[in-house]
Amino acid sequence: MTADASVPELYLDDLSVGPLGEYGSHTITRDEIIAFAREYDPQLFHLDDAAAKRSIYGGLIASGWQTVSLSQRLVVDGFLGRAAGLGSPGVDQLRWLRPVRPGDTLSVRVEIVEVRPSRSKPDRGSVRLKYETLNQDREVVLELTCTVMFARRPER
Amino acid sequence: MTADASVPELYLDDLSVGPLGEYGSHTITRDEIIAFAREYDPQLFHLDDAAAKRSIYGGLIASGWQTVSLSQRLVVDGFLGRAAGLGSPGVDQLRWLRPVRPGDTLSVRVEIVEVRPSRSKPDRGSVRLKYETLNQDREVVLELTCTVMFARRPER
Repeated sequence: MTADASVPELYLDDLSVGPLGEYGSHTITRDEIIAFAREYDPQLFHLDDAAAKRSIYGGLIASGWQTVSLSQRLVVDGFLGRAAGLGSPGVDQLRWLRPVRPGDTLSVRVEIVEVRPSRSKPDRGSVRLKYETLNQDREVVLELTCTVMFARRPER
Repeated sequence: MTADASVPELYLDDLSVGPLGEYGSHTITRDEIIAFAREYDPQLFHLDDAAAKRSIYGGLIASGWQTVSLSQRLVVDGFLGRAAGLGSPGVDQLRWLRPVRPGDTLSVRVEIVEVRPSRSKPDRGSVRLKYETLNQDREVVLELTCTVMFARRPER
């Protein structure tokens, strides 16, 4: 973390509808899956190899909340970390389309769906972002559309 | 983890529309907030006290993904861990309504919105659950509606 980290490069004014980029990748390990499950989602198919093998998934799979959180990390590293993001009021249409398994390599493709300056607060606006998380076979494992608030570029 | 953990008490057949329960609580610490942010959501207002103080939030707040993940943990401990849950295809209408700050104590109120046996797979069905995560002042900080698959009770 350097002092520059708090000086954004990208403001609402710099964003427009269309493909934004693809960020990552990260290869998820069995240990990461189990560590997350222990803390946040201790269902057996996220936690226990033998029980997971007997489940409908046929083996250990990552918690969907871990897949989302890892996707967020990749998008922060690649985009949000250098933008004037102000947090998110929410998410629509979060879909876990395929299981994520140990050794899968994930990246996130992001598209800007809408850019809307605020009517009531002239210093900011909201952006709708679509995330698609892909595995090493280019299959979409997760998609979601979230709203993120961004500051407008300050007047010089 | 005992052997019993893989023998569910609750199947789809045991679930019906209406309030299910309230689960928790968990008090979130500053260290937990920063640890999660470092791994999954390193935006400055989740990570750095000084930068967070200058932000629109006026101080450190938890990543929304951490609030969801903690909520999931409370619901697994209180309900899903003893039910025949088969995972989730997705979530609708996830809303972060208020910031979560160090020292906040969270619990999750769960309501069953819909129970729908599968037409194509007679051994299972889907349930729509509404989570409302409350803080110590009984304010709703998060709400979401997710679909969870459950096994039907096996024939004896």
